[in-house]
Amino acid sequence: MSQYSASGVSIAAGNRAVELMSAAVRSTYGAEVLAGLGAFGGQFDAAALKGMQSPVLVASTDGIGTKVRLGAAAAAAGMLGCYESLGHDIVNHCLNDILVQGARPLFFLDYVAADRLVPGRVAELVAGMAAACRAAGCALLGGETAEMPGVYAASEFDVAGTIVGVAERAALLPRPGLQAGDMLIGLHSSGPHTNGYSLIRRVFDGVPLDTVFPALGRPLAEVLLAPHRSYLNVIPPGAPVKALAHLTGGGFFENIPRALPEHLGAVVRLGAWPVPPVFSLIQQHGAVDETEMYHVFNMGLGLVAVVASGDASAFQAAVGEETFIIGELVGGPHAVTLV
Amino acid sequence: MSQYSASGVSIAAGNRAVELMSAAVRSTYGAEVLAGLGAFGGQFDAAALKGMQSPVLVASTDGIGTKVRLGAAAAAAGMLGCYESLGHDIVNHCLNDILVQGARPLFFLDYVAADRLVPGRVAELVAGMAAACRAAGCALLGGETAEMPGVYAASEFDVAGTIVGVAERAALLPRPGLQAGDMLIGLHSSGPHTNGYSLIRRVFDGVPLDTVFPALGRPLAEVLLAPHRSYLNVIPPGAPVKALAHLTGGGFFENIPRALPEHLGAVVRLGAWPVPPVFSLIQQHGAVDETEMYHVFNMGLGLVAVVASGDASAFQAAVGEETFIIGELVGGPHAVTLV
Repeated sequence: MSQYSASGVSIAAGNRAVELMSAAVRSTYGAEVLAGLGAFGGQFDAAALKGMQSPVLVASTDGIGTKVRLGAAAAAAGMLGCYESLGHDIVNHCLNDILVQGARPLFFLDYVAADRLVPGRVAELVAGMAAACRAAGCALLGGETAEMPGVYAASEFDVAGTIVGVAERAALLPRPGLQAGDMLIGLHSSGPHTNGYSLIRRVFDGVPLDTVFPALGRPLAEVLLAPHRSYLNVIPPGAPVKALAHLTGGGFFENIPRALPEHLGAVVRLGAWPVPPVFSLIQQHGAVDETEMYHVFNMGLGLVAVVASGDASAFQAAVGEETFIIGELVGGPHAVTLV
Repeated sequence: MSQYSASGVSIAAGNRAVELMSAAVRSTYGAEVLAGLGAFGGQFDAAALKGMQSPVLVASTDGIGTKVRLGAAAAAAGMLGCYESLGHDIVNHCLNDILVQGARPLFFLDYVAADRLVPGRVAELVAGMAAACRAAGCALLGGETAEMPGVYAASEFDVAGTIVGVAERAALLPRPGLQAGDMLIGLHSSGPHTNGYSLIRRVFDGVPLDTVFPALGRPLAEVLLAPHRSYLNVIPPGAPVKALAHLTGGGFFENIPRALPEHLGAVVRLGAWPVPPVFSLIQQHGAVDETEMYHVFNMGLGLVAVVASGDASAFQAAVGEETFIIGELVGGPHAVTLV
């Protein structure tokens, strides 16, 4: 007699994971959530959109790449909070993707799949997602956990997420009117965020995760697993910004042009901001070409704003944390030039 | 000198996949899509929601389980259209999940991750998703493709999706007023849909995919890969229905109760509908316990409606295809009893 659990799929493990994460998920619910956990689909009251002039829903799906593997390895080596940290990563990555379109989040849904579900780990992941959602005033409206024996390598898992937010049509980013001479202003990242981890893991292959490199002064895993920053509460809604770029996969070269019209490019001045030691370490330890570094990593700047030159001071004051004028828009090819 | 592609991640392969899928994705765009492919997030004009009385956004994230492995195996054996078919699977699964909440779709986002991205396969998958979206009047607003070396087993991939739809609050399902005596009416499935494939693959382990079992009369792979049906255009908006259950993972025992209040259960009468030969074959070939079959599979009914007994004929006429009265609601435990 065949039981489904013999095929490597445990419905009970999935249900146990749901039980464990239930309180965390519910902690993200405001009055707008009419149905969530356990329903076929989450229900979010959108009555508030009726009060907007011209509401636009902005949505993005993303993953956190092979940072999941580093998190799992660090957890296996005894480091605490790794799965929760990955939960922050996926939510904050998604939050930033719609923030750069001018949107504020409404709700988030997650997808967690593994060779074999470990309910406690899924619950930690979701606890991290829930904490990041609470900080953003965003409901964790739903999700799916899937056991996929044979699809994932042994003990491996993946995490993806989808965020839905809203913006007034007139406030969508990028705004019209970007022009040569507009300034590029960068904001600190908290580390490599969620990009470049396949390269990072190769560069540090064989290096114990608790190694304290003098340049870092902290265990390697701690620096590499620092969660992706959310810029939601850093850029105030009224800040004078024309466009924002979220520096994710593809680094400077792919993400800055995404925020620009076809007839504009950007010049970025190396040396205009301090590249954090973790990136120099990756570059040296892995003998990575410098240009390649800017193709893969955020190099210490997780978000780049495009601001009219006359608004630069006002923008910097509005942001209220250290920012860096790193370059400007130029006419010509739709590309980034490092100088 | 280290190049990122040496870490197993090819940004170029990702970009090539995007190029290939571009036309298919754009074919799903109506005037509501203000930004899609290539943007940090998709933008969907929600002005139409302002004309609703009390709009509720309904969202669901789901996957299609290890049906992906069967599809890949059949494609490797020369069967055509397998990846496109999996694209239909993920969209239709998600569509049904919000349909049973009373919602019509607005937009869909996908997540495709693999050990190594094969641009042509990703493009076929997305072409299938786009076709299913077009049929549903739903925009394929965005997505993410991720190369995750080491996370996925060699040549393996996963597909997930998120759908967002809208319903008038007064039209949300389940409606209040479900009661003992309400009838359960089932609608045909097109096969196992997207559930139970880990068990299916184990049951048919070693059986060539082109085997024509007499009971099926068609090659095994063709029967098993039949895409998940969408019920969106089958249940007309005015049909007199109190609740709908989408029979997915967990089969009858988990999905029917999800549509019922805590004080009601359901009786389902075996023999009230013809169980398609593929399920009998799985059961016999794998020596699977009969009750287990109803825990894992839809057994030929992909959607079950709860209808007031006086409305049964009107519902059946509105649906306009063969339906089956399979049981009724009963007071008592929040569970399904097979009789």
